[in-house]
Amino acid sequence: MSVSPLDSSTVVPIALGDRSYEIRIGAGLLDHAATWQDLPRAATALIVTNDRVGPLYLDRLRTQLASRYGRVDAVVLPDGEQHKNSDSLDRVIDHLLAHAADRKTVLFALGGGVIGDLAGFAAAIYMRGVPFVQVPTTLLAQVDSSVGGKTAINHPRGKNMIGAFYQPVRVVADLDTLDTLPARELSAGLAEIIKYGPIADADFLDWIEAHLDALLARDKAALAYAVKRSCEIKAWVVGQDERESGLRAILNFGHTFGHAIETGLGYGAWLHGEAVGCGMVLASELSARLGLMPASFVDRMSRLIERAGLPTRAPALGLPRYLELMQVDKKNEDGDIRFVLIEGLGKAVMRAVPHDLIADTLAAHLDPSPVPPPPTAS
Amino acid sequence: MSVSPLDSSTVVPIALGDRSYEIRIGAGLLDHAATWQDLPRAATALIVTNDRVGPLYLDRLRTQLASRYGRVDAVVLPDGEQHKNSDSLDRVIDHLLAHAADRKTVLFALGGGVIGDLAGFAAAIYMRGVPFVQVPTTLLAQVDSSVGGKTAINHPRGKNMIGAFYQPVRVVADLDTLDTLPARELSAGLAEIIKYGPIADADFLDWIEAHLDALLARDKAALAYAVKRSCEIKAWVVGQDERESGLRAILNFGHTFGHAIETGLGYGAWLHGEAVGCGMVLASELSARLGLMPASFVDRMSRLIERAGLPTRAPALGLPRYLELMQVDKKNEDGDIRFVLIEGLGKAVMRAVPHDLIADTLAAHLDPSPVPPPPTAS
Repeated sequence: MSVSPLDSSTVVPIALGDRSYEIRIGAGLLDHAATWQDLPRAATALIVTNDRVGPLYLDRLRTQLASRYGRVDAVVLPDGEQHKNSDSLDRVIDHLLAHAADRKTVLFALGGGVIGDLAGFAAAIYMRGVPFVQVPTTLLAQVDSSVGGKTAINHPRGKNMIGAFYQPVRVVADLDTLDTLPARELSAGLAEIIKYGPIADADFLDWIEAHLDALLARDKAALAYAVKRSCEIKAWVVGQDERESGLRAILNFGHTFGHAIETGLGYGAWLHGEAVGCGMVLASELSARLGLMPASFVDRMSRLIERAGLPTRAPALGLPRYLELMQVDKKNEDGDIRFVLIEGLGKAVMRAVPHDLIADTLAAHLDPSPVPPPPTAS
Repeated sequence: MSVSPLDSSTVVPIALGDRSYEIRIGAGLLDHAATWQDLPRAATALIVTNDRVGPLYLDRLRTQLASRYGRVDAVVLPDGEQHKNSDSLDRVIDHLLAHAADRKTVLFALGGGVIGDLAGFAAAIYMRGVPFVQVPTTLLAQVDSSVGGKTAINHPRGKNMIGAFYQPVRVVADLDTLDTLPARELSAGLAEIIKYGPIADADFLDWIEAHLDALLARDKAALAYAVKRSCEIKAWVVGQDERESGLRAILNFGHTFGHAIETGLGYGAWLHGEAVGCGMVLASELSARLGLMPASFVDRMSRLIERAGLPTRAPALGLPRYLELMQVDKKNEDGDIRFVLIEGLGKAVMRAVPHDLIADTLAAHLDPSPVPPPPTAS
């Protein structure tokens, strides 16, 4: 069992040579002038946010940045994954061009993973790269998408098909912004936190089990530790494999099933974290059926994921559809279906799995209710 | 004086850690199987070319790649700088997506700088980066745009506004492809070769003067040495400053005036290399007027640039227009007009220059004839 957190403010340094940066984690960071010190100087800052987060935090961020940048603009995009597209990207780029923003201009991504991915990609390609700061306001973005330098937009033919690896100059994870997060999104973020235990740190899995109620109650000290440890583990993995050639794949524990569920139900029916939560139950089951873990591990993961408010039963998409969806997953370059599995607590491995084992695994955790039709696009 | 070239085939290694690559320079490379050995394996290769270069070399490249890749596709874009835009980029990206190209797919940029910049940018952002190979078929691309990792497309509001720093896995500069290059484009490439002398290597400037007739006659041994030495110098500069924060700016010798001329006349009236040639005369004059170089240097540069078939007299755009165009140049972030100047042969420096000195410099090298109207867009 790890040491309990002692305070609610901390820093995770990300060592990437001349692209190193800090993740600052804590309550009240947004309104502290010190949070924004030592950022690159520029004539202009541009805040990219959405119409849900903007009304809550845009003015406060603008106030802090006004003393640092001569001009602080904002682009407020419609909220939602369906807007992580080239139209939204064009709005950001066109704003920069229309205001003759130079290559020192600093972009601030104020919002969840969608805003971070999109603003990060805009920063990556505007004049071949301008500095950007991540200000993640969802738990998922704080523990996942704000670390690792992945930026992207979606294409009608697939998620994250157009993007770049591009590092922020700072990440500011203000835990107070989680107070306004819907409970369902808090749970979705917990799925990624839980993930870091089995793939990399058995002690952290113990800690999460012991502190899950505090996390659900949005206790700042518990959140600070959970975010910090998650970022540390992700940074450790990414630091060894920045461009996702090997080890980084272990971060996809639960994601192969998860992506199939997301696509099979139609994007938006389940949150990404919900699909990953259920996917982790299924991947744990596969690990047990291959003899890599005891059956008790599956029960332990199921209980924890359920306590976190996440689904643990697979939607009845039918085996052929699952296989089809997992085979086209872009991580499967050679046509095999490979899964991230657990081989001893805290250690992940990649394994190709026979179809009959996938069938048995789905059957063992199936939700027999009929699958509702996909949500209509808004 | 440097050693004379001994053969017409050579390799310049570019050391960039895990992104290191080779520039292979020589006659007949395109049709040699060895040229394409040891490239990344993949199911698919995509050749991006244009409708001028494609008919000359596409089938030959395709033949070589067919033994290495299961599927070799091609996207043939219309020729010309005006097509280095988001429509052409979309055509490449859509082709990749429509054929479910995975992240191992290798892109080949067969053409000049426009194709290299565009295909390189497509490679940079497709699935956050796939390997790409530069096959430059113009002298300018062989000595300039194929080294340094700059990729980009143009935007109606400015050239190269959207792009990325992204390195190829190999550059293949087949000198035989220069046999089909129009004389005017050969001269434009010579402008960038000449540039490397005064900014970095006085001996190379001597060598160019001694071998200019051979270069104009497309002698392969002379071209091999000129391309090799240019790539070595550019690689040396870029290696110390990959992301253009300081030293790399010396590669812009002649470019501040050059960009003003290009924009002032309307893109396409003068080739980039022609504008840079004239820009180098003007920047040499500024260097002399600031006492950094003797007046004889201006004569020497003028003579060489003229012998290379390049313009040496500045179009009569008027001083206010020149100042306006140079002030909005995106290299000038703080509003000052800064120039790359020569301070002793082989050494470049950055200097802010007063307006009256710019006026005198333009007056000393002005072409008094009226400026023709900009060419109409095709």
